[in-house]
Amino acid sequence: MRLDSPSGIPRPEALRGSPSLVHPILTVGSVAFDSIKTPFGEASRVVGGAATYFSVAASFFTDVRLVGVVGDDFTGEQMEVFTDRPIDLAGLQRVPGETFRWKGEYSSDFSARETIYTHLNVFDQFRPVLPESYRQTPFVFLANINPTLQSEVLDQVDRPQFVAADTMNYWIEGTPEDLRAVLRRVDALVINDEEARQLSGEANLVKAARAIQQMGPPLLVIKRGEYGVLMTRDSGFFAVPALPLEAVSDPTGAGDTFAGGFMGYLASAGEVTDAVITRAIIAGSALASFAVEGFGLDRLVQLTPELLRVRFAEFKRLTHFDAL
Amino acid sequence: MRLDSPSGIPRPEALRGSPSLVHPILTVGSVAFDSIKTPFGEASRVVGGAATYFSVAASFFTDVRLVGVVGDDFTGEQMEVFTDRPIDLAGLQRVPGETFRWKGEYSSDFSARETIYTHLNVFDQFRPVLPESYRQTPFVFLANINPTLQSEVLDQVDRPQFVAADTMNYWIEGTPEDLRAVLRRVDALVINDEEARQLSGEANLVKAARAIQQMGPPLLVIKRGEYGVLMTRDSGFFAVPALPLEAVSDPTGAGDTFAGGFMGYLASAGEVTDAVITRAIIAGSALASFAVEGFGLDRLVQLTPELLRVRFAEFKRLTHFDAL
Repeated sequence: MRLDSPSGIPRPEALRGSPSLVHPILTVGSVAFDSIKTPFGEASRVVGGAATYFSVAASFFTDVRLVGVVGDDFTGEQMEVFTDRPIDLAGLQRVPGETFRWKGEYSSDFSARETIYTHLNVFDQFRPVLPESYRQTPFVFLANINPTLQSEVLDQVDRPQFVAADTMNYWIEGTPEDLRAVLRRVDALVINDEEARQLSGEANLVKAARAIQQMGPPLLVIKRGEYGVLMTRDSGFFAVPALPLEAVSDPTGAGDTFAGGFMGYLASAGEVTDAVITRAIIAGSALASFAVEGFGLDRLVQLTPELLRVRFAEFKRLTHFDAL
Repeated sequence: MRLDSPSGIPRPEALRGSPSLVHPILTVGSVAFDSIKTPFGEASRVVGGAATYFSVAASFFTDVRLVGVVGDDFTGEQMEVFTDRPIDLAGLQRVPGETFRWKGEYSSDFSARETIYTHLNVFDQFRPVLPESYRQTPFVFLANINPTLQSEVLDQVDRPQFVAADTMNYWIEGTPEDLRAVLRRVDALVINDEEARQLSGEANLVKAARAIQQMGPPLLVIKRGEYGVLMTRDSGFFAVPALPLEAVSDPTGAGDTFAGGFMGYLASAGEVTDAVITRAIIAGSALASFAVEGFGLDRLVQLTPELLRVRFAEFKRLTHFDAL
């Protein structure tokens, strides 16, 4: 547990569940240069990647320790997205070569996304090595990468308190056994509904959830895009709709931003109860709602704790009803 | 306002917003024989139709006055679905010929429905004629029928307090002017998200909602199937997810059942405030969640007020979170 911020930047204390102690969170995943085209604009070679969105979102609530790799084309200016925040980069390798690059294009109503290219570059040979200072990290999030690497990260963390993972169709189809090995070691899985159906082989989401829980994670958080989030745990279901947004600019990173807000809030609370989980889902949903309003990270990096708090209240208004 | 039940059947008083006065509700729409095939079973020539599902659902909360038509093949036994409940049939015409028939088949994951046939039969020549006893009805629901007939019903009701309507792609494309004339006269429109996008020409649901409100209805209720319901009014949005269900047998009539619960609850409360509207959406959602668990009307007709109340509580548990 750390009491200081590695970057020296003041953190939004008021957003934290536990004001006195910092429960840091470790994440491993991609740091990338994204090129994005949506019906409302285009961006070329902007900083992106799952671990980036996750870290920025989680940093609103707690200290983040990043594990990943960039090439030598990733400059100090581009590092500012991390160095301006309580995001520890001791585990971010910088190696000769080009940074991971991805280019995607969205359909006119955002219902479909086409990947134009994925160049793994330096990510292709990436093996996570945790610095000594990361080994005692209570909260861990394994973003969507090769499940073998996810396991290697877990091997290097000393009895973490709470571990969550993401994955995707590529690993569900391609390396199911490696993925199963990760699932047996995690407390939570955070995936979208299509992935939940594919992983379980069940069309019905309740049956899909039960099947996935039997693979390991007692907590399953299913992201449903514009429809919101569905969570299931032994104690029951929780669901929240997405905030209706008029100005959706770019959905890139929304799922990772959700995960960052969700895990960051859990870590800030320091305990994982039903009540904390439901609030963490709202925190993640609120951050994701900002993420999609801007291109790439634009809106997230300008976000203030005050704006975030206003949006928390909007979620309450959106969903509240008096008991019948 | 009536104090008695036309059928003499005791009503679930405890489910009502206003215990002392009954604010009856009038509905016009199809009464049909449905043949249904889903991955979990088949039913042939069961009583269905939009006005049927609506009336049964609304009758949990208030007295219902039905306007529609059946053929002489619709027998007393089949009438029991109405006569067992506080559903007034003075406006249900019985004419020589066959009752409206529909046959539909659902895909393995319920994501698509194919209509095998639609035989309008006696419905083809149907013109609504309201009995004198119906003319003073404070709440009116125009189920999905030809908008010209919807207007004819409104012409025969004396200054109703609150009018809502449903419609479908067929009328949005085929008779847009007739539909616009109805929209100018209603307080609420209850449609699904695809219809909202088609009617407005907007892919974004917030923009779609605003465009539709400018056509007339200040209140728009958008049904999103397994994702729940989104409501918008000048005062803001309200959304509720659908209850996650393991045993979905047959989605036929779920939208009309929702509308019946929604309007029935509003009528029982006798006033249309934000707080009443949100509870009415939960009432409709709860009834719809039961409807899809059984084939046709099976589950709805066996439902007790006690079971319904338990489900209201499930919706509260599903969606509640403490303010952040």
